[in-house]
This record gives sequence, C-alpha cells and structure tokens, in this order.
Amino acid sequence: MGRITARRAVTRIVIGAEHARTRRPDVLAVEEPLEIRVGAAPLAVTMRTPGNDVELALGFLVSEGVITHGDHFRSAIHCGGPGTGGADNTYNVLDLTLEDGVVLPAPELTRNFYTTSSCGICGKASIEAVETVSTFAVSMDAAAVTATALAGFPAALRSGQAVFEKTGGLHAAALFDSATGELLVLREDVGRHNAVDKVVGWALLNDRLPLRGTVLQVSGRASFELVQKAVMAGIPILAAVSAPSSLAAELAEASGLTLVGFLRGDSMNVYSRPDRVLSAST
Amino acid sequence: MGRITARRAVTRIVIGAEHARTRRPDVLAVEEPLEIRVGAAPLAVTMRTPGNDVELALGFLVSEGVITHGDHFRSAIHCGGPGTGGADNTYNVLDLTLEDGVVLPAPELTRNFYTTSSCGICGKASIEAVETVSTFAVSMDAAAVTATALAGFPAALRSGQAVFEKTGGLHAAALFDSATGELLVLREDVGRHNAVDKVVGWALLNDRLPLRGTVLQVSGRASFELVQKAVMAGIPILAAVSAPSSLAAELAEASGLTLVGFLRGDSMNVYSRPDRVLSAST
Repeated sequence: MGRITARRAVTRIVIGAEHARTRRPDVLAVEEPLEIRVGAAPLAVTMRTPGNDVELALGFLVSEGVITHGDHFRSAIHCGGPGTGGADNTYNVLDLTLEDGVVLPAPELTRNFYTTSSCGICGKASIEAVETVSTFAVSMDAAAVTATALAGFPAALRSGQAVFEKTGGLHAAALFDSATGELLVLREDVGRHNAVDKVVGWALLNDRLPLRGTVLQVSGRASFELVQKAVMAGIPILAAVSAPSSLAAELAEASGLTLVGFLRGDSMNVYSRPDRVLSAST
Repeated sequence: MGRITARRAVTRIVIGAEHARTRRPDVLAVEEPLEIRVGAAPLAVTMRTPGNDVELALGFLVSEGVITHGDHFRSAIHCGGPGTGGADNTYNVLDLTLEDGVVLPAPELTRNFYTTSSCGICGKASIEAVETVSTFAVSMDAAAVTATALAGFPAALRSGQAVFEKTGGLHAAALFDSATGELLVLREDVGRHNAVDKVVGWALLNDRLPLRGTVLQVSGRASFELVQKAVMAGIPILAAVSAPSSLAAELAEASGLTLVGFLRGDSMNVYSRPDRVLSAST
C-alpha cells in the first residue's frame, strides 16, 4: 500500500525573504474514499488514508454495533467499482463477507445510523442509546494506569508516526496496555475516527475484543464519536492530547469510561472515573 | 443560545507537584446533535455546537447542492422531537421550509450523499462529480489577495474566537474580503465542517452567494470535504493553518480554487492557482 503519502508541487511563499516564491515538491497525506460493502451491497463511504482497509471496515462495524467478535467476519476483498467491470481495481472498494446471521442496519442508515436512529433529539437520548447498544460493560473494567505512564503516551504516539510527520496531516490512534504501558498497536489516518476504527478492527482480527485493560491514546481532541467508539470496543480509558467536547465528557461519565484530556507534559485533566488514574509513585 | 460552553468538574493531575490532584471546574465546548428536517422529514443529523443553527442547516444544503440562493429558503423553526409532543423543545431539531420546486436528495443519501452517490470508486470520480454539481465557476473568479494579507488572517481568526479560547475545543472558519482584507463573518463549532457550513449559510441569508472575491480561512487542516464546500459556495481562495490532504489539493486544482496550507507566521504553501496570491509590495 504505497499510497499513504503523495508528492505534489507546491509554491512556497515567504514574505520578505530574498527568494520569496519557490516551486518545490511537498509531501501530502493521501485521502481517498473507501466504499465499504457487505455481501456486495454498499454500506458506507468514508474518506480515509489507504492502508489497513480491512481493519478500518471491521472497526467501523464494531463501532456501529454490527459485529463484536472475529467469528462474525469471514473474508474481505478489494474489488473493482461499478462501470469498471472489475478490471480497474482502485483498491477503494472493499467487499466484506460476514458470518450468516449477522444483522446489518438498513442501508439508508449506514454511516450515520447511530446518530440518525438514536440521538436525533438531544444529547441525553443519544447517550441512552449508546448504553443500550454496547455489548461490553466498560464501567466494570478494573483497569488502572499511572499518571506517569499516561504522560508518556503522547510522545510514544508521535514517535510511532515519525514516518508521516513530514506531511503534518495525519492523525493517529494507539492502544497501550494499561498495566505495563506496552504499545499494542498504532494506526494513522487523515481522520481520527478512521484511525480509531483501524485500531478496533485490529483488535477484532486478533481476538482481543473487548479491549479490557487498555488505554486508547488519540491525537487532537476527543469528540462524542470517539468516546462512543471506545465504549463500543470495551476500552476503559481514552486519552486525548487536546480538549474533549461536553458530550464526550457526558457520555464518558454515563458509560463509566475514564476520559483524559489536555494530556500535555506532566499534567492532564480527568473528566470521568479518575479512580483509574493512579498517582505517580512519589 | 447560552449553550456554547458548559462547565464541568474535572480532576486536574500534575505529576510531581505538591498538590498533585485537584478537583476544579473546567469549561468545555458544547457538542450536541442537530437533526435537520425539511418539510418535517428528517434529512440529516450532525454533531454541532449550538448556535447559528439556521445558517448551519442552510450552509449544509448549499454544500450538498440542494439550494443556491436565499429565495430557495422560506422559514425555519426549532421544534420538539418525536415523543416529546412538541412540549419539550430541546432546540436540537430544526425544521426548514423550502420554496416549492426545490428538489431534495433521496432520504437514504442524506449526510453522505455526495460521497455515496458519486465518489464511491476513486478520487477522480468524486472530483468529476463535484465539478458537475457545482453551480458556481470558481476557476473564473478574478479574486486576488496579497501574501501579507493572507499571513494576517490566522491571527484575526484566533482573536475573533477569543471568547472560546478557554475551551480549547472549538474550530473556526472566517470569511475575508480578498481585496480589502475585511473580516466578513466568523463562525465557530466543534466541527470545522459545521463552522464552514455556518459561514456559507450566513452568505445565503445575506444574498452573497456565490462568494466571489473572498478568502475562507479555517483552523486546522484542509480536507477534501472543506475544499468541496468552498467550491459549492463559489469561494475562490481557501486557506488552512495546517496541511491539506492529497485529495483536497487535487480537487482544488481541478476546480480552479486557490488552496493555501501551512499558513503560519510569514510563510505559506500554495497548492493550486498561486496566481491569485500576490507577492508583498516590497
């Protein structure tokens, strides 16, 4: 999958410099649509960075409550789109075959069906809907992590994505063992949601769902949707480098997930279930 | 609309400090779902920061190619959701009445219909689809902006959103006159896409579409979707503080939109149509 970055000519302008305007190559993070099909029927389209597409599709299905176990998944194939006769495989259409009996959402609900079907009224309604849907009880997870370990995760995330630092355009999500601090998996994408889906898909493929005893570290902010994805995968602790939204904090509290924000340097804010964050052994 | 920020108790942890763990209030950016209805029929749900909901809904409809002029819009009302009997108005359901004859997309396509219906195969297909759909020819816009004016826009954006700086969680989009540098409108949201939709909706309500001779400045990165929104509103110049994606740059070039990225301090990268960025008068 040599399509994660793309070179492109760019005009660099520096005000006041002697050579104010130069033409030179730049490296961009690739963004392309992925059409996810199940049994040849289109289910959703997401804009993503190519690579780990099977993980992305499976993680998406876990996030949406369609599957919860590796046994639910049979096979996946990149196929040609309509009009190409299958000859011109762009690797942007992925067709999944699931186990018999897996119930799919109605096609008109697809990508947004959790919001469309459940939280169309207010934040409270959506939170209640998520609590009902999730198979895994995050609130009961006995995981704990030291503040010191947490403080080291953002740097581990950054160093893990060093290859793509030159693009400045990729988000990342990484899963750590809460007890040992070991990095379990790291995925990147132009979209944070996709990076998380890839991590969750990896877990499904490796028979690790629910992801008890883990910390999900994300770049950037923590939205409602990221908290929901963590809850759906059974992840007890979610840490973000920047701010959470109000609904992210509310859903975290309602679900019993530990939500950490503004994790920078030696400090952090814990918005819910701070009992899982152990003080440094001082 | 006193619902843009929310106070919430947070546990602040500072490693090694004397009072390592303190409980204190924090201010979060509010994120709540908005259900957009047209003629009482649900069309889309988006997670947004409350406020300027009518602009958001109208800008969304412009982005999706449903309406292009203020005459297409009759009225909007926040209504109670199902089950509330209309008594408990959460202000999270907005019902629009459009002019007779405005054609809506099929309900199953809603939020993602531009991707679902057009770019499910590859980036090229999606770019061709957008070019077909957009009413406004961005490539013909004779707008130009000086590099010096551009370099000042990120600071203007930040100072315009100073009220919400304390949350650290709001994106912003602002529209500037490309000739004079005047700030025309600034909108904030937990989602950058929503902030742009609000700006475009403001333009529709003020009879300013297409937005010729303007620069759209956004916080963060430039995705395919943001470029598409600019093109659909007839905005000739899009500037982002951070990196664009590959598809954002491709769509910008194909559409004849000037895309500026990494606009920081006195320097910037211009990914397409650099002829619209005039060298500083040195």
